[in-house]
Amino acid sequence: MSRVSRASTKKNAAASVVGPAIVLIRPQLGENIGFAARAMANFGLTDLRLVAPRDGWPNEKASAAAAGAYATVDAATLYETPEEALAKTNYVIATTARPRDMVKPVMTPETAAAELTKRQRSGERCAILFGPERSGLDNDAIGLADALVTAPVNPAFASLSLPQTVLLVAYEWQKQSGRAGLGRSTQFDGPAQEGTPMQNTRPAEREEIFGLFDHLERELDAHGFLQPVEKRPTMVRNIRNMFHRMQLTEQDVRTWRGIVSSLTGGKRRKP
Amino acid sequence: MSRVSRASTKKNAAASVVGPAIVLIRPQLGENIGFAARAMANFGLTDLRLVAPRDGWPNEKASAAAAGAYATVDAATLYETPEEALAKTNYVIATTARPRDMVKPVMTPETAAAELTKRQRSGERCAILFGPERSGLDNDAIGLADALVTAPVNPAFASLSLPQTVLLVAYEWQKQSGRAGLGRSTQFDGPAQEGTPMQNTRPAEREEIFGLFDHLERELDAHGFLQPVEKRPTMVRNIRNMFHRMQLTEQDVRTWRGIVSSLTGGKRRKP
Repeated sequence: MSRVSRASTKKNAAASVVGPAIVLIRPQLGENIGFAARAMANFGLTDLRLVAPRDGWPNEKASAAAAGAYATVDAATLYETPEEALAKTNYVIATTARPRDMVKPVMTPETAAAELTKRQRSGERCAILFGPERSGLDNDAIGLADALVTAPVNPAFASLSLPQTVLLVAYEWQKQSGRAGLGRSTQFDGPAQEGTPMQNTRPAEREEIFGLFDHLERELDAHGFLQPVEKRPTMVRNIRNMFHRMQLTEQDVRTWRGIVSSLTGGKRRKP
Repeated sequence: MSRVSRASTKKNAAASVVGPAIVLIRPQLGENIGFAARAMANFGLTDLRLVAPRDGWPNEKASAAAAGAYATVDAATLYETPEEALAKTNYVIATTARPRDMVKPVMTPETAAAELTKRQRSGERCAILFGPERSGLDNDAIGLADALVTAPVNPAFASLSLPQTVLLVAYEWQKQSGRAGLGRSTQFDGPAQEGTPMQNTRPAEREEIFGLFDHLERELDAHGFLQPVEKRPTMVRNIRNMFHRMQLTEQDVRTWRGIVSSLTGGKRRKP
């Protein structure tokens, strides 16, 4: 196994810390290292540490699976033991599918992300440990950690893959660190936000909606739809409620007025 | 492309609904269908619907990638169009990396899961749409949905894979549906819970901890450690605080008393 010098290891790791280090202990498949790197890049994590990867390092399959997250793979640092990988960290969480044998706090990914964010804000350097695909972390590795993280899964089918686990932990960290918008940004604008976007329009004003109601109800009266007369108030109310549930935009109101005009006017009206 | 009859499709889908249907529109890689099925099984979703998978169905690579989630893959139902797959649903959310062009509510996976859970509790049948790997959902497919879901990602590296997206949505659904414990269960006991497990012990009582303090401080005095005398109160307080931060169990207290006895007594004390 090739190995970087300890000095360069420290420097690389320190330079890139913007979230917890992801520490993969004896990962077996290069693909999974690449998938993990991709998940890290998706959620803004950059500090990937590899302890004794089975197939050596660098690994072509890891680079291929990273699907563009080359910077994360290329910046990965290599260690011979978990203790070396964790030497400069202050707080360590271990991932496990079955946190049973130790008196150690058990957290969901969400709680763990909150704890990590809080500690990082006060300057602590944090890491999350992940075990080999086949076996997960052994008890000696878990003994190096302050706390355990375990996902809420279907207990009858609980086996998350290594990159899936990295993805969930990184996703929750991104949510809690509070720096992300939604989805992709482009050269034209940033990521999206929750809510209903109105880029080329705006929510309709009630005056506009009332104008549509007047137009539609006048035509419905003219065509004899709002009959019998004693049912008219209920029918009108129901129709108005349907329109309100649409949360119409100003453009929508104009479209509907066009629809009503089209259906009631024009050449087809009385052929 | 093979195709199940519409009658059997409906029956299968209806029988297995315990969460939203996962609808993959023109998925390209069998592996990704399998990974998606695995993620569904991990988080308790069972209703997988495939619209015109590129390589036909069934697909050996999907079964291999499902890594044990065979029931989910085998129960997948097949459709020619998104409209057919959604025919019996009441509420539909579409996944997209860039929710820009339509006046349609944009949600995080967390918000979407809350909306789905609420609607399912009132009897609505829900579905989540996922597009082909290369292009994502086209505007026509998005036009079939009530709302959009987009994950909070690193905007500079926002490309989640198809199975990663299924994983996140399923994970949030599982969290919100509130039925999961943490991790794997066995024949002996159920999934874990948050907090510090104490299966064969219990938190120490203060009386036990005070007994340890007496024992340790007596020995430290005897060995001349708590000097000079004017510093003794501060030194004692600091040592006691370290022990309190450990959140000792009853077993821990006994271990520490053994450590103190061992270090101060026995053959090595005065060689």
